Amino acid sequence: MIRVTIYNEFYHERKDNLAHDIYPEGIHTTLKKALEGQDISVDTVTLDDIDELTCERLAKTDVLIWWGHCKHNDVPDEVAVRVQQAVLKGMGAIFLHSAHHSKPFKLLMGTPCNLCWRENGDYELLWVCDPSHPIAQGIDRFVKLDHEEVYSEPFTVPDPDKLVFISSFQGGEVFRAGCCYQRQNGKIFYFQPGHETYPTYHNKDIIRIIKNAVYWAAPIFRADKLEAVEVKKPLGE
Amino acid sequence: MIRVTIYNEFYHERKDNLAHDIYPEGIHTTLKKALEGQDISVDTVTLDDIDELTCERLAKTDVLIWWGHCKHNDVPDEVAVRVQQAVLKGMGAIFLHSAHHSKPFKLLMGTPCNLCWRENGDYELLWVCDPSHPIAQGIDRFVKLDHEEVYSEPFTVPDPDKLVFISSFQGGEVFRAGCCYQRQNGKIFYFQPGHETYPTYHNKDIIRIIKNAVYWAAPIFRADKLEAVEVKKPLGE
Amino acid sequence: MIRVTIYNEFYHERKDNLAHDIYPEGIHTTLKKALEGQDISVDTVTLDDIDELTCERLAKTDVLIWWGHCKHNDVPDEVAVRVQQAVLKGMGAIFLHSAHHSKPFKLLMGTPCNLCWRENGDYELLWVCDPSHPIAQGIDRFVKLDHEEVYSEPFTVPDPDKLVFISSFQGGEVFRAGCCYQRQNGKIFYFQPGHETYPTYHNKDIIRIIKNAVYWAAPIFRADKLEAVEVKKPLGE
Amino acid sequence: MIRVTIYNEFYHERKDNLAHDIYPEGIHTTLKKALEGQDISVDTVTLDDIDELTCERLAKTDVLIWWGHCKHNDVPDEVAVRVQQAVLKGMGAIFLHSAHHSKPFKLLMGTPCNLCWRENGDYELLWVCDPSHPIAQGIDRFVKLDHEEVYSEPFTVPDPDKLVFISSFQGGEVFRAGCCYQRQNGKIFYFQPGHETYPTYHNKDIIRIIKNAVYWAAPIFRADKLEAVEVKKPLGE
Repeated sequence: MIRVTIYNEFYHERKDNLAHDIYPEGIHTTLKKALEGQDISVDTVTLDDIDELTCERLAKTDVLIWWGHCKHNDVPDEVAVRVQQAVLKGMGAIFLHSAHHSKPFKLLMGTPCNLCWRENGDYELLWVCDPSHPIAQGIDRFVKLDHEEVYSEPFTVPDPDKLVFISSFQGGEVFRAGCCYQRQNGKIFYFQPGHETYPTYHNKDIIRIIKNAVYWAAPIFRADKLEAVEVKKPLGE
Repeated sequence: MIRVTIYNEFYHERKDNLAHDIYPEGIHTTLKKALEGQDISVDTVTLDDIDELTCERLAKTDVLIWWGHCKHNDVPDEVAVRVQQAVLKGMGAIFLHSAHHSKPFKLLMGTPCNLCWRENGDYELLWVCDPSHPIAQGIDRFVKLDHEEVYSEPFTVPDPDKLVFISSFQGGEVFRAGCCYQRQNGKIFYFQPGHETYPTYHNKDIIRIIKNAVYWAAPIFRADKLEAVEVKKPLGE
Repeated sequence: MIRVTIYNEFYHERKDNLAHDIYPEGIHTTLKKALEGQDISVDTVTLDDIDELTCERLAKTDVLIWWGHCKHNDVPDEVAVRVQQAVLKGMGAIFLHSAHHSKPFKLLMGTPCNLCWRENGDYELLWVCDPSHPIAQGIDRFVKLDHEEVYSEPFTVPDPDKLVFISSFQGGEVFRAGCCYQRQNGKIFYFQPGHETYPTYHNKDIIRIIKNAVYWAAPIFRADKLEAVEVKKPLGE
Repeated sequence: MIRVTIYNEFYHERKDNLAHDIYPEGIHTTLKKALEGQDISVDTVTLDDIDELTCERLAKTDVLIWWGHCKHNDVPDEVAVRVQQAVLKGMGAIFLHSAHHSKPFKLLMGTPCNLCWRENGDYELLWVCDPSHPIAQGIDRFVKLDHEEVYSEPFTVPDPDKLVFISSFQGGEVFRAGCCYQRQNGKIFYFQPGHETYPTYHNKDIIRIIKNAVYWAAPIFRADKLEAVEVKKPLGE
């Protein structure tokens, strides 16, 4: 059983009619219902109860999914560091859409994770670069999303260990939309689709990709602590 | 002085009116005139005289530029192996457009280097992913080409060491259009634009990119031979 | 059930007393016995019957393990190309020890895969760089082999997608001993230990690593053919 | 003219006789004298005057060299962030020896950058993996250092973009000793040799490597600021 925790700031869905209509119980609840199953259990946390993201809870989380947008700064620094540490020990992490600017993602990347963007209701085509990658299984050559927020290059992240998806938008922009990283023992997947005013997380291909990413990111090895080790003697003594 | 050799199969420009009108003296001649300068000298070779691509000539070439399309199979296997060996020793190589299917590129990559394509006169937007890369210097956020052949993912090459450009096309396709590789001592740049029926190599940004790539690929180290070395004794004896 | 095929040239074990004493039935038989189990089935092929490595057989092989040393040139070119194509379609491949110079490995890498070597009975220490990698599971900080052939850098392969093991030898040499690659749909693991005159494949840690690599390399996606695709019309028409 | 700034915490050389005897004016002064020349100018900063590492000064620094060991925590967080930001904008950075645990390096890597270590006066062999790399020019197959502190794997950094040197030590340990990274516009080189009680920075090969790294890391492109950009309209409007 893979234990998933979904963090959602849960702001737009309560303040904005458009977002509310699409995700009346919040993006986290939509994702929870879509991902839960025989071998995946899901808990959720929102900004209101973010202090529940304790070290203990993170130690019992196999894969953390993070959605945040305009409330990144309200996430306490300690929580961001805890998430970073949990990933380094081995917890998987999936950062969705505007979580490129979330504190834990930026801590793990070491870069500003900036991009260019605009919101004009463009369609998006999400292309598979590597059909053999676990996260692309079950997906055709591309997924069409009728409307998404436009993100475009340059995306100031470290070069991904593996680029699985590249997107184009109606206006011609391109974006590295599905990027895999490993940081110490933890696997990280950044995935661009999911603006709060479009029904992206009701799309079955998008859910399939996120579910694939959960399996991919689940740890096979976790460290208890992150410490440098002094080895007093030469080998063999 | 960087010594460039341009290989062009020089077929379309003599058989096809459209290509002839754009490149009356051949793509190689257009590129030669555009690249020659104070610190770059250029020689050219075509399929007619491909046997001139001897080991000696390749040893005196700093960067080889390769354009080929429908005559890949007429390139003798020995020539392809010679080019591969020269790159491994340290010669730079730039493979343009349909040279993704040229024999030396496929030998160096070890993969089929396939892609999807169509020809409908779409426009292309060539985006810079890394504005700090030497090959992207002097280029704005993107270059627009009014018409190009559409190439799209998946592009079955090994993951590039560095991805500098990603392109989108009018129909929505995406392609890793500018890919850097190192193979032993040699630097390799694959660059997608340049279909023979469009005036791509008359575009000053495209020329700027190819010229940047020449400087980038020029070797600082070359091996005389490619041999495994038996070291008879332990270190220090 | 993962279907493994082991190729061994099976020369030294019949001609050389030392190798014969350690592997009386051949390295392939030792590996077969060590790897077979509940979810791994193993077949073997030697140079004598290498023509049995047909496209059909490779299509039914999930992971091919290759051991060769002084008979690389006796492997027919067609067989090498068949193996390369099978990997590109999705078959996993593990190249052991001197298989760095085997024809299929060199075809897949595109480089000479040279190294420096000497044979003085040095001990080897095989170090884990990434304890979280699937191929390193169950292995301590390092594995000590009392005697191995010394391989040392530079190893003229493309930079691995992932470096799992680095070895040092008694004389002070270092070598990238465990290297992961992906080429199109296939996963490739190069693993250095295994000289025919030392009982390396009787070491349980070495077997554990090879078994881990079998699980890691087994395909989840295979292509039927390797062809470029012309897409006649723009998307949506 | 490449403008280098060297930061040295300058603690051991004033407190410890051994370090003082080897570097009476401090490691920074030894390095300054060794690196200065026709096209490299060098300034130095120590922990005493670390507040001089202002944004203005960093903006005028092409390559920052960092040596620190037991006083990492005395470096103010603001300075560490300033260094990180300067690198992201394009400044080169070379982190020497125990600077693997310095604040700016850890911020840029996003990982703990831990390793195992011991101090028994072992000799070190620093091996070149890629003889064609700019940082390895002029260096033979390996450099022998009679005594160095032992660092060993696993080194919990992100996989380097390019691994140039691997070291072995007398006791058999191995370490990725020369690692190249790019983070946004800045180039980063981590280089392991240089314990304060050994005369490593008096070794001409080590100096040659650091000088090569200065040339390699010097920026060709710098950003003025690090901001996400909203593009109000689709392309072409």
